Amino acid sequence: MPVAAPTIGDLRRDAQRRLPRLAFDFVDGGADDEVTLRDNVAAFDRVRLAPRVLRDVARRDQTLELFGRELSLPVLIAPTGMARVAGRGGDVAGVRAAGRAGTAFTLSTMSNDALEAVAPHTTAPLWLQLYLWPRREVVTGLLDRARRAGVHALMVTVDVPVIGRRVRDVRNGFTVPLALRPRVAADVLRHPRWLRSMYPPPTFGNLVAEGVRTPGEALAHAELVTQLLAHPAATWADLRWVREQWEGPLLIKGVLTAADADEAIACGVDGIVVSNHGGRQLDGVPATLDALPAVVEAAAGRAEVLLDGGVRRGTDVVKALALGARAVLVGRPWLYGLAAGGEDGVVHALELLRSEVDRALALLGCTSLAGLDAAVLHHAVGGAAERPGAGAAW
Amino acid sequence: MPVAAPTIGDLRRDAQRRLPRLAFDFVDGGADDEVTLRDNVAAFDRVRLAPRVLRDVARRDQTLELFGRELSLPVLIAPTGMARVAGRGGDVAGVRAAGRAGTAFTLSTMSNDALEAVAPHTTAPLWLQLYLWPRREVVTGLLDRARRAGVHALMVTVDVPVIGRRVRDVRNGFTVPLALRPRVAADVLRHPRWLRSMYPPPTFGNLVAEGVRTPGEALAHAELVTQLLAHPAATWADLRWVREQWEGPLLIKGVLTAADADEAIACGVDGIVVSNHGGRQLDGVPATLDALPAVVEAAAGRAEVLLDGGVRRGTDVVKALALGARAVLVGRPWLYGLAAGGEDGVVHALELLRSEVDRALALLGCTSLAGLDAAVLHHAVGGAAERPGAGAAW
Amino acid sequence: MPVAAPTIGDLRRDAQRRLPRLAFDFVDGGADDEVTLRDNVAAFDRVRLAPRVLRDVARRDQTLELFGRELSLPVLIAPTGMARVAGRGGDVAGVRAAGRAGTAFTLSTMSNDALEAVAPHTTAPLWLQLYLWPRREVVTGLLDRARRAGVHALMVTVDVPVIGRRVRDVRNGFTVPLALRPRVAADVLRHPRWLRSMYPPPTFGNLVAEGVRTPGEALAHAELVTQLLAHPAATWADLRWVREQWEGPLLIKGVLTAADADEAIACGVDGIVVSNHGGRQLDGVPATLDALPAVVEAAAGRAEVLLDGGVRRGTDVVKALALGARAVLVGRPWLYGLAAGGEDGVVHALELLRSEVDRALALLGCTSLAGLDAAVLHHAVGGAAERPGAGAAW
Amino acid sequence: MPVAAPTIGDLRRDAQRRLPRLAFDFVDGGADDEVTLRDNVAAFDRVRLAPRVLRDVARRDQTLELFGRELSLPVLIAPTGMARVAGRGGDVAGVRAAGRAGTAFTLSTMSNDALEAVAPHTTAPLWLQLYLWPRREVVTGLLDRARRAGVHALMVTVDVPVIGRRVRDVRNGFTVPLALRPRVAADVLRHPRWLRSMYPPPTFGNLVAEGVRTPGEALAHAELVTQLLAHPAATWADLRWVREQWEGPLLIKGVLTAADADEAIACGVDGIVVSNHGGRQLDGVPATLDALPAVVEAAAGRAEVLLDGGVRRGTDVVKALALGARAVLVGRPWLYGLAAGGEDGVVHALELLRSEVDRALALLGCTSLAGLDAAVLHHAVGGAAERPGAGAAW
Repeated sequence: MPVAAPTIGDLRRDAQRRLPRLAFDFVDGGADDEVTLRDNVAAFDRVRLAPRVLRDVARRDQTLELFGRELSLPVLIAPTGMARVAGRGGDVAGVRAAGRAGTAFTLSTMSNDALEAVAPHTTAPLWLQLYLWPRREVVTGLLDRARRAGVHALMVTVDVPVIGRRVRDVRNGFTVPLALRPRVAADVLRHPRWLRSMYPPPTFGNLVAEGVRTPGEALAHAELVTQLLAHPAATWADLRWVREQWEGPLLIKGVLTAADADEAIACGVDGIVVSNHGGRQLDGVPATLDALPAVVEAAAGRAEVLLDGGVRRGTDVVKALALGARAVLVGRPWLYGLAAGGEDGVVHALELLRSEVDRALALLGCTSLAGLDAAVLHHAVGGAAERPGAGAAW
Repeated sequence: MPVAAPTIGDLRRDAQRRLPRLAFDFVDGGADDEVTLRDNVAAFDRVRLAPRVLRDVARRDQTLELFGRELSLPVLIAPTGMARVAGRGGDVAGVRAAGRAGTAFTLSTMSNDALEAVAPHTTAPLWLQLYLWPRREVVTGLLDRARRAGVHALMVTVDVPVIGRRVRDVRNGFTVPLALRPRVAADVLRHPRWLRSMYPPPTFGNLVAEGVRTPGEALAHAELVTQLLAHPAATWADLRWVREQWEGPLLIKGVLTAADADEAIACGVDGIVVSNHGGRQLDGVPATLDALPAVVEAAAGRAEVLLDGGVRRGTDVVKALALGARAVLVGRPWLYGLAAGGEDGVVHALELLRSEVDRALALLGCTSLAGLDAAVLHHAVGGAAERPGAGAAW
Repeated sequence: MPVAAPTIGDLRRDAQRRLPRLAFDFVDGGADDEVTLRDNVAAFDRVRLAPRVLRDVARRDQTLELFGRELSLPVLIAPTGMARVAGRGGDVAGVRAAGRAGTAFTLSTMSNDALEAVAPHTTAPLWLQLYLWPRREVVTGLLDRARRAGVHALMVTVDVPVIGRRVRDVRNGFTVPLALRPRVAADVLRHPRWLRSMYPPPTFGNLVAEGVRTPGEALAHAELVTQLLAHPAATWADLRWVREQWEGPLLIKGVLTAADADEAIACGVDGIVVSNHGGRQLDGVPATLDALPAVVEAAAGRAEVLLDGGVRRGTDVVKALALGARAVLVGRPWLYGLAAGGEDGVVHALELLRSEVDRALALLGCTSLAGLDAAVLHHAVGGAAERPGAGAAW
Repeated sequence: MPVAAPTIGDLRRDAQRRLPRLAFDFVDGGADDEVTLRDNVAAFDRVRLAPRVLRDVARRDQTLELFGRELSLPVLIAPTGMARVAGRGGDVAGVRAAGRAGTAFTLSTMSNDALEAVAPHTTAPLWLQLYLWPRREVVTGLLDRARRAGVHALMVTVDVPVIGRRVRDVRNGFTVPLALRPRVAADVLRHPRWLRSMYPPPTFGNLVAEGVRTPGEALAHAELVTQLLAHPAATWADLRWVREQWEGPLLIKGVLTAADADEAIACGVDGIVVSNHGGRQLDGVPATLDALPAVVEAAAGRAEVLLDGGVRRGTDVVKALALGARAVLVGRPWLYGLAAGGEDGVVHALELLRSEVDRALALLGCTSLAGLDAAVLHHAVGGAAERPGAGAAW
């Protein structure tokens, strides 16, 4: 399936055309009024770049070493559950694409494909996301599987003490149990290819061992799922315990404040992912780009700081790095690519971003990621003060 | 009538579908150009929350004690006149719903159902709103009735020295006397169920003793109504006099400045409601959330500060409390619920807000309302300065 | 012709319905991209009012004494040329309406009705606007006529060294000579009543003595018109000379800076009208409300400061006065009224504003215009910082 | 072909009507999400002018001397490649129009008409734009041709180390090789006049000597084109070398920072063009007007500072000069004029801007460009603080 979308935005529109509404909304939507979802993207547009000229930029290098492994671009794949909803290839397609692009794939615990099914396809670092379950034997079991599968880094998601409310899903009836509105059901029937791709129904591959395979079964084991996914009683002590169990790189995902960054570093994490869960948890929190500087300042080099949320452009990547992130992760972009073109679509998404980062580096006068610091950001001076409104209609 | 709206916004749209335009506009509209009406809502979206993670939030408690009575959530029902326009159940449905939800209902003096008809249905604190009438015997009479009915707190509205102009009502001809435009009348005829619910025409239940039953009669007694409702000569002395008459909790509603908060406290009020009458009085005053901090600072703990206006989300509640309010009141949301589903609809509105507050608490890392202070608000730092305009169209 | 529009905005829409497009655009439009035209209105919406409660506002008084004459409201009629385009009644209707409302009417030199035709209908102060013509005998002649007609104050317009370009007029072909586009001509033919009202074609009544009666003749005397209207060589010396010729109140209109206010006061003016010619001269200058404070500060009580531009609401009037204006003038509102309902329409426009000012006074806690100062303006404090974008769609 | 568009904006719409979409988008579009493209225009609307009155402005003079040559207005024609796409007349029409208007025309190296074909039509300064090619004999060859052709000034473009991505062109398939979408091709066929004007296909006139004539040949010589156009290894040393080769005025185009302005001056340039390549290179860089003040400050009079990008109005010109630019260049406006009316259309565009500058000078109280400094800019003071949102819909 050839993929020609010239931007991630076009890829998103391709996904919208191919997917039934309920699947697209599941991928695309956010919590509540989606204020944070939109702000994640808008925050990047509020930052202006200050390009330098006439520096030799014939050779640009966007590789980076992260936790001892080299990545070919500063864009990793973020953990996203239920990828099969976006495309049949699911997580295996994702990990293969990441390998082809030379970057890390973070497998969600709520993935459809099991860790053991995904790992053999890996040709780049495989990361694993997990939650701080109260049943510690589940964690230790998963860590054992992770070691066997060659997982490089562990990413603990901490912003789901309870599950956010994605209103689009509720409106569509894309809930457990399914309660599709007629209009939504009719739309599904107009997408027979997608419908066929849902048979057999995707399982939660990593949780099969825990007796949870389908959303239906999850419903039947509501208490179990609650324990597995949203663990409201988790504390920093649980993170410290995970730190003791896992000898490899450990990241915490879902931090938006300097105070929590400090706490996390005190627990021994190696990295912090500034994230608001793609605007899918608490609506009204800052765009991740707005939250980044305080976390970077707090980390003070003691831990790597990454960011996800709203990254749709190579210049977004560059802005995040200029504000102190070491790399970014993309969630929706890889799912748009998966929906638009399977594994090739995911590669296309990553290659788009790579080429945009490369162009941005050249046009900024930088030859490597090391050149991306506060000096490449424009700060307004002089008489042309910013003012709202009053624009002529050109 | 089952109510499934996933947000107050959906409930509003349900109300819009069920009500004829003139009734919906009466509930939904504001004064003049509705600048303040819109700003009330927009102000909440301008505030960003700073969530903390990995605090044990397994048990969240949003109860609060207010003037010696416990409420199960920090959302009370604001006084709104003429509720029967929104739904047949009117005030009785509202007070029953408030009781089911465990929160206070504030009966408007301009309610359709009389205090004595409403009070027996109360299972939670019943509050009474009144105006500072020049005829003091009307006040004392009402206070006697309030005592007999078991009213817990008195809320004196002070922002109606004259009545604001709700332009939608004027345009619709929903005035005294009625002057419906043909288009508006035709729209009413397309809502026979609503039309039937208006027979017999709703009276001003609390004012029957004063000889005012219907808007028609009100017109015939224009002077009386002026004296009853809008009393432009009222002063702080009148408030002091009410204070002497009423031994229970006394609140003043309609304060937007620190100076008036000071005056009110000097008069001995127990609580101040920061309110702009839902944007229905003077257009161009600040959003209540923007006015709140100065009032909280002036009150300095000497009186409880509440807020109404623009609250549509659990996160709005949380933001108001973080900026110093003890609780909020909701007017339109309960009327949307009433229109959409009668008593059950009102319960639904309150339960929506409760569940949203609960989720917000968990996601902020707070286990009780006591945790909501300035620390849960995000303040921008660093390079990603806010700037208007220039957003890509995602 | 009964006029029921509940706001000036509705009156504007009435005018739009009644007038052919070219006439409406002539009244409604501004220079170039109309950035300043829109900003004049928007500036008022950027200001927030701080209402005080429980002050005795039973009696409100919006009269003011201006240059020794009492006006019944702080809203005067601004000079506007060619009023006959908006309605047959023209300037006579305007001056009669102003008299009925108890406020001053400023007759434009470019009026259709001559000073001598207008003056007998005056029952309130009549003001006369004029330009600083190079031919001083024209000025002295007009001043003689003004004295005989009982003109109270003279208003010298200084912001037309050259004439601004109103692009709507150019696009419509409403130029000298007429070059109507077919679409525009067809639209005129659909308004036969308006077309008849243009016969006989309106003359420039005040200039007949100078040999200029119609736009056609004006064209034939291009040099003369240039000398009469736009006098680019005028300087402060010319204003000083007028000051010597005129013993009554003298105002200068078209000042937007403190420096020019200073110069004008040094020339002996009694009043300064902060004006950008209704956004019809230089596009891109500040909204008059934004320019007002610096002029007020510069005047420092040595001259009255008035404002025109963008006033559409009683709260706009109140905001201008709170920022230091003594009164405001309205141009388009009176022409909308004239188009919508002739003399009665103009009265309606003024009475709308009067009732809105009255309501605003009451709701602000003020009993007279003297109470309108910086204290009635809200200034943001605390945590709810303003931020653009990101509003939920309510 | 008579051209009557009253503004550059109308001229743009004329161009849009006459050109097939792919040609219009080629002229009109920018890089990526076009954030900078829009901001270039919007930045001018954010600046407010402070007009002074009653200064004798009977004679306005907008001539300026630039590098020893007089120009009749402070607006020059910017270099734009492939002008034949906008209109058959191409560069020759442009240079003739510039001569008629009395201003400089900057010929792009990527022009269709060769320098030798253009030069004979010149009656005003002819400037030449070029890139810093790695093959220095190409540069020296072109400089020799420039001397023979009487080129006055040399403008070295430095913001194309790699070529920006104009997404509209990619979406249209207006790429090398052509890959037109059916919809786009059909649209071309509906413009037979334009299609005929493309035969014979335009060559890159200046590069014929290098063996590159058409886009097709350019493709066949991809390496060569890369060397000719985008030279990522160019450094300040290359600029210094050009300085040594060229005895006439030398400008550098594409500078947005004070640091690069300093470097350029150290290399001996005579002028700096603040430019973001019309928003066609790196999206997300500042509007040129926002970047201007820092460059002006850095230049400190040691080099002339010019600006291009977003200039559509005489007031835009005035604002740029008030912020320190000596003159501005216009790219799209001349191409809109070319598309709308050939050579006459270009003259029309320049005369529109001239008349707008003239009117702005008069209305600002200035008689020459020397009067345009910070004093003509309005800076907000007092109570009417800027605030977003909340505008009534007038």
